Amino acid sequence: MSAYDELMQFQRETEALGEIAGRLGWDQETMMPDGAAPQRAEEHAAMSRVLHARRIDSRVGEWLEKAEAADDVAAANLRLIRREFEKTARVPADLAAEIARTTSLAHRVWATARADEDVAAFLPVLAQVVALMREKAAALAGDSDPYDALLDDYEPGMTGAALGAMFAALRPRLVALREAVLAKPAPAPLSQAFDEAGQMVLTHKLAAAFGYDLNHGRIDQAVHPFSSGSGLDVRITTRCNPLDPFNCFYSTIHEVGHAGYEQGINRDYLLTPLGRGVSMGVHESQSRIYENQLGRSRAFTGWLYGQMRDQFGDFGIADEEAFYATVNSVSNGFIRTEADEVQYNLHVLLRFDLERALMAGDLAVGDLEPAWNDRFKADFGYAVDKPSNGLLQDVHWSEGLFGYFATYTLGNVYAGCLHETLRAALPDLDRDLALGDATSATAWLRENVQRHGGRFTPRETITRATGEAPTEAPLLAYLEAKFGGIYGL
Amino acid sequence: MSAYDELMQFQRETEALGEIAGRLGWDQETMMPDGAAPQRAEEHAAMSRVLHARRIDSRVGEWLEKAEAADDVAAANLRLIRREFEKTARVPADLAAEIARTTSLAHRVWATARADEDVAAFLPVLAQVVALMREKAAALAGDSDPYDALLDDYEPGMTGAALGAMFAALRPRLVALREAVLAKPAPAPLSQAFDEAGQMVLTHKLAAAFGYDLNHGRIDQAVHPFSSGSGLDVRITTRCNPLDPFNCFYSTIHEVGHAGYEQGINRDYLLTPLGRGVSMGVHESQSRIYENQLGRSRAFTGWLYGQMRDQFGDFGIADEEAFYATVNSVSNGFIRTEADEVQYNLHVLLRFDLERALMAGDLAVGDLEPAWNDRFKADFGYAVDKPSNGLLQDVHWSEGLFGYFATYTLGNVYAGCLHETLRAALPDLDRDLALGDATSATAWLRENVQRHGGRFTPRETITRATGEAPTEAPLLAYLEAKFGGIYGL
Repeated sequence: MSAYDELMQFQRETEALGEIAGRLGWDQETMMPDGAAPQRAEEHAAMSRVLHARRIDSRVGEWLEKAEAADDVAAANLRLIRREFEKTARVPADLAAEIARTTSLAHRVWATARADEDVAAFLPVLAQVVALMREKAAALAGDSDPYDALLDDYEPGMTGAALGAMFAALRPRLVALREAVLAKPAPAPLSQAFDEAGQMVLTHKLAAAFGYDLNHGRIDQAVHPFSSGSGLDVRITTRCNPLDPFNCFYSTIHEVGHAGYEQGINRDYLLTPLGRGVSMGVHESQSRIYENQLGRSRAFTGWLYGQMRDQFGDFGIADEEAFYATVNSVSNGFIRTEADEVQYNLHVLLRFDLERALMAGDLAVGDLEPAWNDRFKADFGYAVDKPSNGLLQDVHWSEGLFGYFATYTLGNVYAGCLHETLRAALPDLDRDLALGDATSATAWLRENVQRHGGRFTPRETITRATGEAPTEAPLLAYLEAKFGGIYGL
Repeated sequence: MSAYDELMQFQRETEALGEIAGRLGWDQETMMPDGAAPQRAEEHAAMSRVLHARRIDSRVGEWLEKAEAADDVAAANLRLIRREFEKTARVPADLAAEIARTTSLAHRVWATARADEDVAAFLPVLAQVVALMREKAAALAGDSDPYDALLDDYEPGMTGAALGAMFAALRPRLVALREAVLAKPAPAPLSQAFDEAGQMVLTHKLAAAFGYDLNHGRIDQAVHPFSSGSGLDVRITTRCNPLDPFNCFYSTIHEVGHAGYEQGINRDYLLTPLGRGVSMGVHESQSRIYENQLGRSRAFTGWLYGQMRDQFGDFGIADEEAFYATVNSVSNGFIRTEADEVQYNLHVLLRFDLERALMAGDLAVGDLEPAWNDRFKADFGYAVDKPSNGLLQDVHWSEGLFGYFATYTLGNVYAGCLHETLRAALPDLDRDLALGDATSATAWLRENVQRHGGRFTPRETITRATGEAPTEAPLLAYLEAKFGGIYGL
């Protein structure tokens, strides 16, 4: 066997083990009996050690030295394997172990601090995490921008400066749009309970509407909706709250976006580095375009309105137009994960600026809470009332996930670009959406984005699909047109 | 760390990985989407290679040389780890690979041959499997009895000669009991459909009746009932056939016996070699005593009768006594897995004698089918009508599982011994069983058998519980008394 073939055989086995580890996580959230938790922790740790040993296996370095790429696909495989091997090698084992130990502790401290509304209890361990992540950034990238070094784990090739420019253009217009919308009367809210069984019936119809393949996936309920797995086994979860069926329906569509991406990747890439979504940002672009630009469109909500009436009877919303406004209702709130399309990115931008300053050393952990609260007041117009609605609301920083938040908004920016091109390519899409059929959009996304998997860089992936470099302009135009229309601005 | 501690840390991780591999099998039978099968095959293969590499890891040999046992538990751990390491080392890698390759092929050939009723299509590959298993036996045990060498994988310390003596005592009395019972009128059969939802309600009540711990387990449906996992996560499956609710109920109780054993092991042994059931025979003793001696007893079936009437209404069986006879109905049949308590062991004894002769070289594969059919006619009194009801009915030989069948009957023998002791220890057990409460029996089994896990040899495990070496006498006495009573012999 050639060095390339040996490397790929080893890698293929690593990918298969990675899929097993991922499914272990799925099982934990959906099927595992409660009392199994202590044993499961040992199982996870054992699997992590196996995977880590393979990532630093010296044979990989030797194969990489000798391997030759026979074609572009092989070159892309080598590029991704080399990238991960070199990045792993640059972080000293002691530092990696210390990060694992400290973030595990910080996660527990954060959960308690959030329950107790006690920022002071969390800051010391957060300061340790920040110091360790800056140390990791220095190990990865020397004197370069530490935020960029960490961002590269989630969005290879992207920089904080490029994001900063896009986000600076988004912020004032989102703040202005938010203010204009909230000055108008609120749409009618839902005001009754919707039974769980009925929500799950519609969940399956929604998944089918977007082309989710149940022969290579399944749908279960879990506390947090997620998508899990790659290749031939990509599972999603949703959740049911009787008073908030939209949470169920749009969680489902969002996760179908993530899962559809994985299901849509060229099957030739199965169990290779190309066989997974290329970045967090591109992944989020798929979940967001399904959820928002398509799932919350006038055409599709018209179909959903009829489906809900068929399932639940008259639920007090007069017609499709009123339902469209209810689905897209904008209201005040502190929590990022509950935010609407207009306000969501403002929550992300806040975190992006703060964590970039933390990593640059321009902001001390001790000054983080006032900085958060000042920024929130500035963008949202009212004050954070308690830490669980402010600095302590998200798990990410306790887990050392610096650089991650930005990919949520980057995904929305990408979704805006893709949606503009998609609409031009499919002029009759609304006719399909009004019939509850989004599969023509899925087919377009599959052909132009999803099938490539990790074949190109994230930026190349979007640029190939849209014909131009991504900018925030289409997202802004879409949001201003949509919410201007709904709220009569 | 001491050599013993290093060894145990490594072993603990191996055990955790083994649990993950087992749960992957559970997932495949219960949750996996159909289209995922090709990827799952690669995942299984990757996990098997990881586990195999750990089993032959040279560090284990070095640790075993240096390790010292500080107490009896440590000595038992070292004994079991050494045993597995040495057995694995004795089988050449090429032979192990050839066995894996050939049994994988043979399994597929067997499935097709069974569907086609074509013995001739199966015999050539079976001959290869037999030759390879004899080669493996020679690698394991030199010139010693090849059957014993293979049996040792399933029932360490047991021999074909010891089994042969017990089984020779069983056979004529079981044949005589069978003939006497079948000369009598058959009990009334069930004659209506029982809905699946109701069967699953009773499944949960039955699991609770025997003390199955759902905080460390779960119940799902699968094509074949099974128990999966050790320690804190032991799951079972059952199946529902509307026309045969007893299949569901007694599959559930059987698997609760297996799972209860694993759940009952001393928690100090978690993720160590002591933390699993000690042998197939002892395992089967637990599933069989739950299913038969307890679950099919007059007292317990009296309770089940009431439960079934509560769930399904009047189903045409007049009273508890008639129901007891129906549950324990004996009738002609070709299939081992569908056989009643009286006839089941005759099916096993047939296979035991034939496979022992195959391994000894006293029976050629070409002569196997006539040997099977002659023996069946001799014990059951009528001829095998087609290969799927005869030689081709079981999967075991195609998978190279020689030595496995005997543990089914050995489990029944052990169950007979344990039941005799249990009844003496719990004189009021029938009062509990009549109330649908078998937990006092579970508590006795837990204290006297289950908690020990792999701490003692299989034979020691049973002998410690009963106070004497196991023999077939209690099983025979129990069967003759029970079926003599039901059938008025």
